Amino acid sequence: MRVKALIFDVFGTVVDWRSSVIREGEALGNLKGWKIDWAAFADEWRFDGYMGGIRKVISGEFPWRTADVLHRMQLDHMLEARGLSSQLTEEEKGHFNKVWHRLMPWPDSIPGLTRLRAKYLIAPFSNGNFALMTNMAKLIGLPWDCILSAELTRIYKPDTRTYPLICELLGIPPDQVMMVAAHFDDLDAARSVGLRTGFVYRPMEFGEARKADQDTGRGYDVSALSFIELAEMMGA
Amino acid sequence: MRVKALIFDVFGTVVDWRSSVIREGEALGNLKGWKIDWAAFADEWRFDGYMGGIRKVISGEFPWRTADVLHRMQLDHMLEARGLSSQLTEEEKGHFNKVWHRLMPWPDSIPGLTRLRAKYLIAPFSNGNFALMTNMAKLIGLPWDCILSAELTRIYKPDTRTYPLICELLGIPPDQVMMVAAHFDDLDAARSVGLRTGFVYRPMEFGEARKADQDTGRGYDVSALSFIELAEMMGA
Repeated sequence: MRVKALIFDVFGTVVDWRSSVIREGEALGNLKGWKIDWAAFADEWRFDGYMGGIRKVISGEFPWRTADVLHRMQLDHMLEARGLSSQLTEEEKGHFNKVWHRLMPWPDSIPGLTRLRAKYLIAPFSNGNFALMTNMAKLIGLPWDCILSAELTRIYKPDTRTYPLICELLGIPPDQVMMVAAHFDDLDAARSVGLRTGFVYRPMEFGEARKADQDTGRGYDVSALSFIELAEMMGA
Repeated sequence: MRVKALIFDVFGTVVDWRSSVIREGEALGNLKGWKIDWAAFADEWRFDGYMGGIRKVISGEFPWRTADVLHRMQLDHMLEARGLSSQLTEEEKGHFNKVWHRLMPWPDSIPGLTRLRAKYLIAPFSNGNFALMTNMAKLIGLPWDCILSAELTRIYKPDTRTYPLICELLGIPPDQVMMVAAHFDDLDAARSVGLRTGFVYRPMEFGEARKADQDTGRGYDVSALSFIELAEMMGA
């Protein structure tokens, strides 16, 4: 392996989206006096809104829409369904929608990335839009060399056409770029078009709601239990 | 002014391209035993190759071509014209062409950017391609929050269509984004589509070969003699 760059899935792999959304939801709910199951709210926002929206963009049912727009459509729908829409100003809705720009990292993410950066070019490669990834990196201090996003290609992962375009933008051949993710679908797609693959196990991504992908011999180039172990395995 | 982001022209504004190219050219010339006027070589590479090429892409005479490609076309032409082409391997040519990824900053650039970054989102916005800007930032430690390049819009500055697309990618309205450059054409174009403008005087950009733009009351939002003074003026 002559890997030059590591590109990272972000939601779930680098940051703990679920706890972060629950935490801000609870704060908002307390302020407004709402009784809401914020874990269920976060999951519905994520799975029905964001991931469902991405599937529809990939299938062609939706035109191109950014993560910010998909999040906002779902938020509006969920507030409406709960009869809460009129209890938030437009500014409050806009701010809450950007909770996805303010997700907190897993504890090992920044220490591991900092080590990896000394040896490799590192970047996020998320379906989250460019501004979202940029704002998040600045807020929590993710030490990226550059920001990559599926938005730059207008093709969402795991559509296999997006990965080679991102490698081209980096000026690095796919077999010298490693996709790092906690999700099989992302890694399998990247591998199918010639990228290297690194799995990181994130058992708590979905809390009790779903079982996280767990690598049991799927043949990725590396498979680690944390970003620290990933850095070790990559000699960084 | 409620500026949230500063985006920077790079060649000449952040880095001293001319001295950097001359220095690497001299090292290569000594190795090969060539007698070459490296200042003239650098200027021809820059003005005829890169800037001439960009004008042709803007006018439609050339299809889209990255800075790396424009640089390489001109390098091949200049080596051929001097009868030197056969004296370099393909690997040596490729390496020398990437001297544009290895330009050194003006002495005040990194200190000033480091201050500005504490208050603003900062990014390069160059006609240099995304990989070039990413590699340069990593090599010399430019503290950008993200990398922007005209390549992301496939429209070169100072075509006015590129600036709003970049603001959209950042998710920030144009009147909250300041274009910083040592060149009137870039600032005038940015201003015409609603961006804020910051001029920085770089008297030595062209050495003795050409006179640098010098601001004498052109009405930019700020006009500074260095990145340190820019940081002062921007309250950073």
